[in-house]
Amino acid sequence: MKFNCSKNDLIQALQIAGRAVATKPQTPILSGIYMKASEGTLELQATDYEIGVVCKIEADVEEEGILVAPGRYFSEVSRNLPGNTVTLTNDNNDNTIHISSGSAHFTLLKMNSEEFPCIRPLNNASHFTIRDTVLKKLIRKTSFACANDETRLIFTGCLLELEEEAVRMAATNTHRLSLDQEVLEGYEGDKKQVIIPARILGELEHGLNSDIPCDVTVNISYNEISFSFDNLYLTSRLIEGQFPDYHRVIPSDFKTRVTIDTAAFMAAVNRVSLIARSSEYNIVKLDFSMGQVHISSNSPEIGHAEETVPVVIDGPDVQIAFNGTYITDVLKHVDTKEFYLSLNESLNPAAVRETEDEAFIYIVTPVRVSR
Amino acid sequence: MKFNCSKNDLIQALQIAGRAVATKPQTPILSGIYMKASEGTLELQATDYEIGVVCKIEADVEEEGILVAPGRYFSEVSRNLPGNTVTLTNDNNDNTIHISSGSAHFTLLKMNSEEFPCIRPLNNASHFTIRDTVLKKLIRKTSFACANDETRLIFTGCLLELEEEAVRMAATNTHRLSLDQEVLEGYEGDKKQVIIPARILGELEHGLNSDIPCDVTVNISYNEISFSFDNLYLTSRLIEGQFPDYHRVIPSDFKTRVTIDTAAFMAAVNRVSLIARSSEYNIVKLDFSMGQVHISSNSPEIGHAEETVPVVIDGPDVQIAFNGTYITDVLKHVDTKEFYLSLNESLNPAAVRETEDEAFIYIVTPVRVSR
Repeated sequence: MKFNCSKNDLIQALQIAGRAVATKPQTPILSGIYMKASEGTLELQATDYEIGVVCKIEADVEEEGILVAPGRYFSEVSRNLPGNTVTLTNDNNDNTIHISSGSAHFTLLKMNSEEFPCIRPLNNASHFTIRDTVLKKLIRKTSFACANDETRLIFTGCLLELEEEAVRMAATNTHRLSLDQEVLEGYEGDKKQVIIPARILGELEHGLNSDIPCDVTVNISYNEISFSFDNLYLTSRLIEGQFPDYHRVIPSDFKTRVTIDTAAFMAAVNRVSLIARSSEYNIVKLDFSMGQVHISSNSPEIGHAEETVPVVIDGPDVQIAFNGTYITDVLKHVDTKEFYLSLNESLNPAAVRETEDEAFIYIVTPVRVSR
Repeated sequence: MKFNCSKNDLIQALQIAGRAVATKPQTPILSGIYMKASEGTLELQATDYEIGVVCKIEADVEEEGILVAPGRYFSEVSRNLPGNTVTLTNDNNDNTIHISSGSAHFTLLKMNSEEFPCIRPLNNASHFTIRDTVLKKLIRKTSFACANDETRLIFTGCLLELEEEAVRMAATNTHRLSLDQEVLEGYEGDKKQVIIPARILGELEHGLNSDIPCDVTVNISYNEISFSFDNLYLTSRLIEGQFPDYHRVIPSDFKTRVTIDTAAFMAAVNRVSLIARSSEYNIVKLDFSMGQVHISSNSPEIGHAEETVPVVIDGPDVQIAFNGTYITDVLKHVDTKEFYLSLNESLNPAAVRETEDEAFIYIVTPVRVSR
């Protein structure tokens, strides 16, 4: 095997592939990066059995071949090479990889490529295509609401729901739910529901950063999902189980609708949380009356914080309390200057909506406090 | 107590004072920040018994007073206040501090100010003044060479040596020594040697960042040292004991002097170290001959690295090996485009000097390797 490629292309590909290399691999081979050089292309693969990444870059291939390099060292060495071009050679009869660039020469011991669990395209999969911007928005608006708690696996993923001409994504940790929906042109397949681990969605959001719009091809088999776009192919296991019926969580009606300046309210809740967040529940009290919201928190050990923000209240006054994190979390993902907070009584779920996007809704359960 | 002050001034003062607040305080009061408002000035103090910081800012003092605020929360709250001005009030009869800025109001529980170990000016101290730039250079050129290992306390500090018209600073971890010297105009006192903890020198280097040149007044008592400049006063315990005689470490003569490009050599040693630094000693071999240095490292588990850099060799060829970290550490602090590496045999100490500053010298002990 012998090829020359751009150092920057290689570094970028290793950064992307490196995210699938396990820090504590189940077996040593998973700490490696698989490389295949053929026909003007270098393909890199990495996997930790949960997710897999395949990334292709242009290369001047002088001799085709396959090898697995130790991931961490190969990445570190590549990042630090002095030249703009990298030459990698490997004699099939010995166990070393030679990397040269400028005045620097490195030799790394190669791993056994026969042990590497190569990533193959999904078989028997249904597929659809979606604009990168649409997919990225759905992920951004929902995946933050997942649970981090691995003991309830189903809540560590986002529900992806396909229906005629519509695609929906939902995430919940049982205390809050985030739901977004977009038109999916040309999809006429069956109604379909799968639960995608938040981790691969994070990698996908990270990878979908091209300035040039593109389509993402999504393949879904019974237990796996893959995303391909540009020179990237990402794959992940699906989470098994039944996602809760989110329709039942969304109240059909609200008595009060408050229009609030997003940035001013988020800053105030963040400040008031400085006192509240030392306790487990980060309880922030909101008192809506007289054209303003009085935001406060209290800790017997630390002190007290309060602040008011002018709002427009449409309906009866309400006093309610939330985990402040559940409020600031969603406001980071609200893209409109103002948002609607829809409320019923103190102990009923509330809804956050954007003023200009009816498809997005965030439901949050209040906390009970003594007054 | 009541005062108004600029939020930015307060945040900056809290950042500086906060560095003396212990993360794990010996007694609870050391987690506090002492404040004294009087005559147009707010004075902040923090100490962890090892070091102490006093910082003064302008304030519009409406009512004089003293209090101790919980350091962490007071700093966090101040950083997040919405307005440009902060108003702090405290009723001497209750135990709360009221902080207001813009629409935000915070109440923090105050601490018992009588428990706070106030920082007082050093008594019976000798003193001298030194330009901030000179002091900062001495610290920068030496303190990196200290030991981190607290078991040998004497090596965790820098020697400060005063002699007629001269000031010297030296640091060693027994494997390497860094020494720098400057003219100290107007000093006619006795010869003096003290060992200053590297920690306070780090804080001092950090604090000496004004664009306007100033003089630093240094006071030295039998077991303490203080530095005052601008509105800052830093104090620290001295390290007791006898610093080794550094003159004996510096070879009187070298057979070979190599002139090397600083940036190119540092980059190459850093790269070659990628392979070496997985082992305990980070051994980098240097082979000086034929107008170049061949830099290499080897690890049976990982692989091999090598690189050459052109140099000017004045004297016999030498092969030598160092802990790569001890080389890159000093090169970060070399300010000339080229530097001199002076060598004798493979197992004799080597010296790093700048091409344009004879006062600075760095001595490093080689490591023995099989070839």
